[in-house]
Amino acid sequence: MNFGIIRYIIGKVIFIEAAAMLLPWIVSLVYGERTGLIFLICAAVFMVVGFIMARKKPANTSFFAREGFAVVALSWIVISLIGAIPFVVSGEIPGVVDAVFEIVSGFTTTGSSILTDVEALSRCMLFWRSFSHWIGGMGVLVFILAVLPMAGGQNIYIMKAESTGPSVGKLVPKVQKTAMLLYAIYSALTAAHLILLLIGGVKPFDAFCLSFGTAGTGGFGVLNSSFASYNAFAQIVTTIFMLLFGVNFNFYFFVISRRFKNALAMEDVRWYFIIYAVASGIITLDLLRSGSFSGLREVLFQTSSIMTSTGFSSADFNLWPSLSRALLVMLMFTGACAGSTGGGMKVSRFVIYVKTVAKELRQLAHPRSVKLLKMDGKPIEHEVIRIVNVYLCAFIFVFAASFGLVLLDGFDLTTSFTSVAATLNNIGPGLNLVGPTGNFAGFSVLSKLVFIFDMLAGRLEIFPLLLIFFPSTWRKRG
Amino acid sequence: MNFGIIRYIIGKVIFIEAAAMLLPWIVSLVYGERTGLIFLICAAVFMVVGFIMARKKPANTSFFAREGFAVVALSWIVISLIGAIPFVVSGEIPGVVDAVFEIVSGFTTTGSSILTDVEALSRCMLFWRSFSHWIGGMGVLVFILAVLPMAGGQNIYIMKAESTGPSVGKLVPKVQKTAMLLYAIYSALTAAHLILLLIGGVKPFDAFCLSFGTAGTGGFGVLNSSFASYNAFAQIVTTIFMLLFGVNFNFYFFVISRRFKNALAMEDVRWYFIIYAVASGIITLDLLRSGSFSGLREVLFQTSSIMTSTGFSSADFNLWPSLSRALLVMLMFTGACAGSTGGGMKVSRFVIYVKTVAKELRQLAHPRSVKLLKMDGKPIEHEVIRIVNVYLCAFIFVFAASFGLVLLDGFDLTTSFTSVAATLNNIGPGLNLVGPTGNFAGFSVLSKLVFIFDMLAGRLEIFPLLLIFFPSTWRKRG
Repeated sequence: MNFGIIRYIIGKVIFIEAAAMLLPWIVSLVYGERTGLIFLICAAVFMVVGFIMARKKPANTSFFAREGFAVVALSWIVISLIGAIPFVVSGEIPGVVDAVFEIVSGFTTTGSSILTDVEALSRCMLFWRSFSHWIGGMGVLVFILAVLPMAGGQNIYIMKAESTGPSVGKLVPKVQKTAMLLYAIYSALTAAHLILLLIGGVKPFDAFCLSFGTAGTGGFGVLNSSFASYNAFAQIVTTIFMLLFGVNFNFYFFVISRRFKNALAMEDVRWYFIIYAVASGIITLDLLRSGSFSGLREVLFQTSSIMTSTGFSSADFNLWPSLSRALLVMLMFTGACAGSTGGGMKVSRFVIYVKTVAKELRQLAHPRSVKLLKMDGKPIEHEVIRIVNVYLCAFIFVFAASFGLVLLDGFDLTTSFTSVAATLNNIGPGLNLVGPTGNFAGFSVLSKLVFIFDMLAGRLEIFPLLLIFFPSTWRKRG
Repeated sequence: MNFGIIRYIIGKVIFIEAAAMLLPWIVSLVYGERTGLIFLICAAVFMVVGFIMARKKPANTSFFAREGFAVVALSWIVISLIGAIPFVVSGEIPGVVDAVFEIVSGFTTTGSSILTDVEALSRCMLFWRSFSHWIGGMGVLVFILAVLPMAGGQNIYIMKAESTGPSVGKLVPKVQKTAMLLYAIYSALTAAHLILLLIGGVKPFDAFCLSFGTAGTGGFGVLNSSFASYNAFAQIVTTIFMLLFGVNFNFYFFVISRRFKNALAMEDVRWYFIIYAVASGIITLDLLRSGSFSGLREVLFQTSSIMTSTGFSSADFNLWPSLSRALLVMLMFTGACAGSTGGGMKVSRFVIYVKTVAKELRQLAHPRSVKLLKMDGKPIEHEVIRIVNVYLCAFIFVFAASFGLVLLDGFDLTTSFTSVAATLNNIGPGLNLVGPTGNFAGFSVLSKLVFIFDMLAGRLEIFPLLLIFFPSTWRKRG
C-alpha cells in the first residue's frame, strides 16, 4: 500500500470539503443565523488541515486498484466524520451517531433521516444536509480529478472506485477531461432543474435544496411533508429530473457529441425506461383495482423517486396495496442506470444477469451453439461478468448480515427488511416504521451503525468498504 | 431432441408410479377403506399404459444434457398429474388444481398443503400423500436407473438433472451401481427411523407416514397438529433423522467404504452442521431474551425441520420474535447439503458464493496473487462456478416473478414472500397465513399454479423446468 499518495489525496478531499462548508455559512448570513459561524470555523480549520496534509507531493506515485479502493473508502469516512461536526456542535443533532448517520445519508445520497422534525433545523444546517447530496452524487474524488491535475494515468482507479456500475470507462482519453465533462453535465442539469423550480414558484431556499437532492438522487427535503405540499408543476418537473439523473451520464455525453446512434444503442438506458414504464403501469392498475388511485402524477412521481433512489415522497405509499409496495421494494434493488448518480444494484447489472440466464438456457437447448454475451452491441468481457456475479453474492451477504443485526431491535419483518433495503440501495424511505411518514430515529445505536455501513457500502458498491477491513490490504507491496 | 427415448423413459416412469400405487391399496385393505379401490384401478390402468409406452426400445439411443433435462421435467409433470387422480376421483380433494398442488407438494418433498383438515382424509390417501415424499426424495428416475439397465453411459444426464446440488458425480464408475447404492442408503436410513419410531411407541400407520416424510425431507403429517402431539422421544429421534437426510449422501458412501478421511473433508457437510448449530444457538438466545423459550428440544426440532426443508412443526414458530422468524426464513434459502433429499439452494452453493467473494477481496488486496477456488481440497471447476452463479440469477428471477404474481391475491408482504420461499425451496410452511397452523387453501388458482411451478422448479433446480418452455428445446437436432 502506498500510504504517501493516500495521505496526499485525503488531504485534498478534506480541503475541498472545508471549502464547500463556506456555502452554508453564506446561507446563514442571508438568513441571519448565528449558528452558521460553525461552518466558517470548520471551513477554516479543515482547510488548514487539508492544506498541510496535501502540501508535500509523495515521491512514489504508484497507484493501483487497491490504492484506488482504499483512498475512496477512507475519503468517504473522513468527509462523513468532518461533515457531522456542525450538527453536533450546534446541538441541532446532538448525538454523534445520529449526526454521522444524517451526513452519511447525505453524502451517499440515501436520504434516510433520524430527524422526527426536519423543519426544526436552521436554514444553514438544512442547506448543508441537502448540499451533501450534491457533493456525493457525482463524487468528491471525481471532483478532485476534474479540478486538479494528477500524476500518471492511474487515477482511473479512483474514478472506477467512486463511480457507479460494473464497467466504468472514460468518455474521453484523459481522466481529468472525463471528470470535468461529467461535472459539467451534472451542473448544467442541476441548474436547469433549479431554474424550472424557481419559475414554478418554489421559494428560492427550497428550490436550491430540492435541486441538490434531485441531482444527487438523494431525497432530503426541507419540509416534514417531503414533496407533498409543493405544487403540481414542481412535482412534474422533479419527476422528470429525477429520471434524468438516473440515466447513465454517458448517454448525455453521446448526445452532446452528436453521436445519437451510440446514445440510442445504450441498453441499460432503454431498459431503465422500460422498467419504469411497466412498473408505473402495474402500480396504476393495482391502485385502481384497490380503489386507492388518486392520480397518475402521484404514481409517476413515486415510481421515479424510488427507482432512481431519490426517495422524495408526494404520497404515503405505505398505505398502497401489497403488490404496489412490493414492486417499489423490488425497484429499490434494480435501481437506476450505471454511471448515473442513482443507487441500487443498477439496471445494467440486471441486464447482464438476465442475459447470462438466457444464454445458459439457449446453450442447454443447443449444446453446440456458442454465443458471446453482448451489451450495447459489443461483447461483454468475461471479467465484467465475473465481477458482476461476485457483486451479487457480496451484496446478498451484506444484506443478510445487516438484516440479522437490525432484527435484534425487534421491529417487524417489513420494517427491518425495508430499512436495510432503503439504506444499502441508497433510497431513503422504506415501509412501515421507516415509510414516508416515518424515520430512522427509533433504531438502536447498533442498527444505526449498521445503516451507516450499508449506506457507504451501497454508494461505493461494497468492495472498497469491505476491503479496508482486510488487514492484508494495508501491508506493504511485497 | 430424441423423442423416442423420451417416450420410452416416461413409459417406465408411469409403470413404476402405477406399481407404487399398489401400496396405498394394500393400506386400504388393512383399514377396510373402500376408496382404496381407486388405487388398484389406477395401478392397473397405468401399468398397462406405461408398459405399452416402454414396450419398444427406441432405435436411436443418443442422449445428452438436453434430453436429460426434458425427460426429468416431463416425468415429474406426468407423475404429478397421474398421482392427483385418486384425490379427485375419491372426492377427498375435489378441485383438480388443489389435488395437483397437494401431490406436487408430495413428490417435490415440499409439504405445503391446501388441506384445512388433514385428519378428514382416509388412511390410504394419507399414506399416498406421505409415500409420494419418499418416492420424490431420492427421485423416481434415479430409482429407474437403479433397477433397469439402460443403454450407454449417458444416463448420467438423467441423474444430473434429477439429483440436487451444483456438481452431481458418480459414487462408483457405473451409474446404475451408483443409483442402487443411493437407494440402499436411503432405504436403510428410512428403516432405521421407522423402527425407532415404532420402539418409541408411535402408532404403526403414523410411524410409516412420518418416516417417509422425514426421509424425503417432505413434511406432510397425518395430524392437524403436525408433530406437536408426538412424544419427546419421537421428536428427538426425528430431529436427528431430519438432519441425517439433509446430509450429502456421498458422506454415507465414504463412511460405508471406510474412507473416513474423504468423509471428514466434505466442506458442505461441515458447514451444514456449523450453520445448524449457530442458527439454533441464536434462536435459543433470541427466545430466552424475549421470554418465549420453552425448551431446547423445540428449537432443535424446528431449526432442523426448516433447514433440511422438511417442514414438520412441533411449535408455532409464527409466534416467535422477528429475529428467529427471519433466521428461519434465511435457513429456507440456505437449505440442506447438495446430494441430499433436502431442498433450498444448498449449503455447497453458499460455500462457493462465500469463497468467490473472499477470493475477490484477496485478489483486490494482492493483485498478483493467483489462487484457485477449492472445495474438499480439490479445485472447483470454472464451469461449476459459472453455473452456480447463473443458478443464483435464475433463482432470483423465478422468485421475483412468483412473488409478484402471488401478491395479486392481496395478502400481506410476509405471507406472500414466505409462501414463495416455502414452495420454491421445498420447505412446507412459511409465516403468517402460511405458518405452521395455516395452509395454502386461501390462495387463488393463479397463485396455486405459481406454487406448483415453484415446487417443481425448486426440486429440479430450475433449469429443467424453464427449458421445457423454450420452443427451441423441442427442435430436432440440426
